[in-house]
Amino acid sequence: MFGARCLLRILRSCSSAPCPRHNPAVRLSVRDALGAQNASGERVKVQGWIRSVRSQKEVLFLHVNDGSSLESLQVVGDSSFDSRELTFGCSLEVQGQLVKSPSKRQNVELKAEKIEVVGNCDAKAFPFKYKERHPLEYMRQYPHLRCRTNVLGAILRVRSEATAAIHSFFKDSGFVHIHTPIITSNDCEGAGELFQVEVMEGLFKTATVMVLSNCSEDVDLCHKFIAPGQKDILEHMLKNNFLILCICLPHPPDLSISYTEAVEILKQSSQIFTFTPEWGVDLHAEHEKYLVKHCGNIPVFVINYPLELKPFYMRDNEDGPQQTVAAVDLLVPGVGELFGGSLREERYHFLAQRLARSGLTEAYQWYLDLRRFGSVPHGGFGMGFERYLQCILGIQNIKDVIPFPRFTHSCLL
Amino acid sequence: MFGARCLLRILRSCSSAPCPRHNPAVRLSVRDALGAQNASGERVKVQGWIRSVRSQKEVLFLHVNDGSSLESLQVVGDSSFDSRELTFGCSLEVQGQLVKSPSKRQNVELKAEKIEVVGNCDAKAFPFKYKERHPLEYMRQYPHLRCRTNVLGAILRVRSEATAAIHSFFKDSGFVHIHTPIITSNDCEGAGELFQVEVMEGLFKTATVMVLSNCSEDVDLCHKFIAPGQKDILEHMLKNNFLILCICLPHPPDLSISYTEAVEILKQSSQIFTFTPEWGVDLHAEHEKYLVKHCGNIPVFVINYPLELKPFYMRDNEDGPQQTVAAVDLLVPGVGELFGGSLREERYHFLAQRLARSGLTEAYQWYLDLRRFGSVPHGGFGMGFERYLQCILGIQNIKDVIPFPRFTHSCLL
Repeated sequence: MFGARCLLRILRSCSSAPCPRHNPAVRLSVRDALGAQNASGERVKVQGWIRSVRSQKEVLFLHVNDGSSLESLQVVGDSSFDSRELTFGCSLEVQGQLVKSPSKRQNVELKAEKIEVVGNCDAKAFPFKYKERHPLEYMRQYPHLRCRTNVLGAILRVRSEATAAIHSFFKDSGFVHIHTPIITSNDCEGAGELFQVEVMEGLFKTATVMVLSNCSEDVDLCHKFIAPGQKDILEHMLKNNFLILCICLPHPPDLSISYTEAVEILKQSSQIFTFTPEWGVDLHAEHEKYLVKHCGNIPVFVINYPLELKPFYMRDNEDGPQQTVAAVDLLVPGVGELFGGSLREERYHFLAQRLARSGLTEAYQWYLDLRRFGSVPHGGFGMGFERYLQCILGIQNIKDVIPFPRFTHSCLL
Repeated sequence: MFGARCLLRILRSCSSAPCPRHNPAVRLSVRDALGAQNASGERVKVQGWIRSVRSQKEVLFLHVNDGSSLESLQVVGDSSFDSRELTFGCSLEVQGQLVKSPSKRQNVELKAEKIEVVGNCDAKAFPFKYKERHPLEYMRQYPHLRCRTNVLGAILRVRSEATAAIHSFFKDSGFVHIHTPIITSNDCEGAGELFQVEVMEGLFKTATVMVLSNCSEDVDLCHKFIAPGQKDILEHMLKNNFLILCICLPHPPDLSISYTEAVEILKQSSQIFTFTPEWGVDLHAEHEKYLVKHCGNIPVFVINYPLELKPFYMRDNEDGPQQTVAAVDLLVPGVGELFGGSLREERYHFLAQRLARSGLTEAYQWYLDLRRFGSVPHGGFGMGFERYLQCILGIQNIKDVIPFPRFTHSCLL
């Protein structure tokens, strides 16, 4: 019988000796070590990968990173350590004393007492080189290793925080999380409320403020090295109201545009589009990006799309020959469509007619049922999570915000 | 141009009249209305489905539920309301004053000023009947409607809370959420720590305590009507340490069992199993349930499974002719396997040999790479989320804890 707890330790280094019952060194993540206030010689253990080595006559400097933060921990050793095995990319465990650093470049450093290499790194074959900044396209070839770089590490931490922020936004707003392809509220809000595009704006702004506050270094890194100028665009977006129409107010505080107007704007533009804009045809990315620019680089809601372009469940606007549905897309700078949503057709007879026209009545009997037994006006929307990350970080290629993207000619994983 | 915000209101009821600019009634969910402290006549609006109607000569009582809580809100109206349309299952909007209830059965009630039916319910065809308690098997036929019942509503709210609790446990423990089929920490913890089964027990207990505290009424409902006795079993599990082996300590505080011992226990049992227990063959659900019972209905970790039964990436225990891997399953009362995990084979040559034996070297070159460039001891585990819900609620059939389960002969959705 082997105890899971000590199994590894037994197998690794003390197979014949008993495990030590107490280890006085506290294990800390690099993030926690860096955040230690008033470090005064506490004995700690840190594990991570070597990001840099500088070996001088009497002193050895290592920077160790474990993925928990952008910043690495400086490890200082005396001349007794053999630095030959300590190469860029290898993993190690360091025990020592956490002390205030004499340098202004960092708050604390680890005075090494014991350095153990856990896993060597074949530096010649390792695709990432010491002190080199690799382009995103290059790193994309190594999805299984690129999270060890500063940029991808930062993006993945932001991704994790963004997920948490979105969950937290919905939870705090009283939504119930359902495991279907739909995130919806199961309380019976009238769609008049559910469809407030203030929900989408609230989600975007709340989540973004949370990410900026919890991951500021990671976001700054992307803004600095990948998308200079993105910081200003983001601030501009957060400061200003998104464009919304509200015709009920005599003096609308904001403006949105309808699909019909959007097509007019595109037609009058001097820009040459690959796809000629025309009423009844879907907007392409090039159109969406133009519209956002046209509106002053502020997110803009485009509403009321042609019925023929949209699925059967969207609510008919009953607006005569043009026939549109109550659909909305939120377009954002650089990315285009970020959210897409609509009021759903809650009226039994409208829905039954449209299903009958498409020959879908039998398959969607269950969906009709929902309109027979206490139907409620409702709506819903979806957000492109990867596009959201692209938008806040200024990342051009969607493959760089996905940990393990799959695409043609990439069947590595 | 139509404003999304007012679109529905226009279409629904005031297509020719202008929308009111201000509506003094505050919209509340049933949950928030029930939780209102010192209700003293505030004007509110509540939306939901009718759960019960009692029409007396001079007074009308409705119970309205919107899915936000188990308890319904009592709505009281005078004889001026026409109750003919107010039937079980229809959806409505009520405006009125929130007041302290004279009855001890509830804290507050809504004194209706206006009741509007939003969606009628064809009561004869509606599969759920007023005041009837329907078996879970019956409800399973109506996945699109069953969330309107007390039990399924409760299960779905618990599911949502459990998801949040699990996310929060990992976030608070410093894990980074990665969108792959794996949830893992990207900090370089030694597997000795990562593989502490103290993590699984922590996850189970922390999440469960959080769910019990945030959803106590919903959990109680399940324990009362579906699984009497489950409350005691759960308390027993939470109070006691799960069985863990730790051979490093001279007097182990707890005990776990190895796969080999588990098979011995099963062989010596007088119970007749459908599948005869034998070394080298996987444990079946009947075996797992027996083992948990045998150990006093406390969750038990079974460790060190035959190498031949497990995937190539599990760590070889190098234990001679039997040859086991450092795998662990957590078995819990009533459900059997809840967690499954293992140390991963971090040693390049061991892994390379096993891949070569299976002819997988080429396909898994990327996986070998991870052992070439700074390999680290690590481990991982997965949890059956639905099984977790079954375990805390005492639900026998997994289909009842999934919002829209798919199974043979169920292609409704």
